[in-house]
Amino acid sequence: MFEGFLHTSIIKRAIEKGVVEVEIHDFREFALDRHKSVDDTPYGGGQGMVLMCQPLLDCLKTITTDDSLVILMSPQGQTFSQKMAVDLSNEKHIIFICGHYEGFDERIRDYVDMEVSIGDYVLTGGELSSMVISDAIIRLLHGAIRQSSHEDDSFSNGLLEYPQYTHPAEYDGTRVPEVLLSGHHENIRKWRLKESLRRTMIRRPDLLEGRTFTEEELKLLEEIKENY
Amino acid sequence: MFEGFLHTSIIKRAIEKGVVEVEIHDFREFALDRHKSVDDTPYGGGQGMVLMCQPLLDCLKTITTDDSLVILMSPQGQTFSQKMAVDLSNEKHIIFICGHYEGFDERIRDYVDMEVSIGDYVLTGGELSSMVISDAIIRLLHGAIRQSSHEDDSFSNGLLEYPQYTHPAEYDGTRVPEVLLSGHHENIRKWRLKESLRRTMIRRPDLLEGRTFTEEELKLLEEIKENY
Repeated sequence: MFEGFLHTSIIKRAIEKGVVEVEIHDFREFALDRHKSVDDTPYGGGQGMVLMCQPLLDCLKTITTDDSLVILMSPQGQTFSQKMAVDLSNEKHIIFICGHYEGFDERIRDYVDMEVSIGDYVLTGGELSSMVISDAIIRLLHGAIRQSSHEDDSFSNGLLEYPQYTHPAEYDGTRVPEVLLSGHHENIRKWRLKESLRRTMIRRPDLLEGRTFTEEELKLLEEIKENY
Repeated sequence: MFEGFLHTSIIKRAIEKGVVEVEIHDFREFALDRHKSVDDTPYGGGQGMVLMCQPLLDCLKTITTDDSLVILMSPQGQTFSQKMAVDLSNEKHIIFICGHYEGFDERIRDYVDMEVSIGDYVLTGGELSSMVISDAIIRLLHGAIRQSSHEDDSFSNGLLEYPQYTHPAEYDGTRVPEVLLSGHHENIRKWRLKESLRRTMIRRPDLLEGRTFTEEELKLLEEIKENY
């Protein structure tokens, strides 16, 4: 499941450069019966199987150190955000517990520091979620990608990114906005800020609630509303 | 990148059973220069590279049919949800465009039907996002997993799932709630509904806003608030 993620692109390079180390542990190896069972039927009845405490927690004990932050991947956790990615990028050691889709014994929650969800949808397991979070964190680590690449990220200044264009200047009848071809840096900066604000206002007005605006941003917002 | 996802667990079985077909297309093959370039520097200046229209859109043309829904993976899109997963599970053919982390030419947006984000965070590319959405959709397809397994999903009734327990009845000093050992089905059903409501109220009160409650749920909510 993790092969492609660990051996492709930016994550692969980050691992090769020693920016991050990743280990995969299979808690099935800690099962005690000869079938290597890690789940069992739920108390009280119902469909599906529930992950047992013992194999998972025995595995967790062998890898936890004083520096570890233990995160349980679950649709019931706090919703992951770019702010959480920044916070987690300062941690020394993160352990992600990836359950499978039918749920886990409630008592496992007593042994974790955080419970995180990547969004309001149900996945077959926690593996993809742990990769999503790892990806968002690793790209923030020093040396993983050019630092300047973060500065214009969507969400990094609380706004969606402005429209980007590259060659050719005309594609299938549609031209790049003239300002971007003008070479006038100040006009370009202002256009980009305005388009970021416009896009955020139209697509994700919730991101603007509670945000503090500069005087320039407030003026641009007025202009956008006048022509809306 | 996709190997592990396509060859593991539920997705692998769904493909083997013919529940779904998955194809990966590399739009780099549609690049026209000998370096197989798919990106170029942004008009107007700035860090990073921007995906060009031509290779990606030429690739898209070769795979689009009348039944295709073209989804652009982007942090600026509509936020993916369980409801969207259910809607998309009725589509015949979905094409996910996975860009990379620095952005794409704005004009590509003119050729897509939807733009979807899996959450408010920035990833190195759209690959993981497309796997997350595929996973959420494929598990809903008839024959992928037992249908009854969906019924108790978090979010499926607008609430977080109730606590689950499996053997043993006592682990590290903590016992399973007595009601689950009682064999009294009606009490178990009521306890689970109450704990779902309690958990949602504490962890995700936003999910309760605008939800319609049954009379029983309203009564249980009153009990929860009294003892809160």
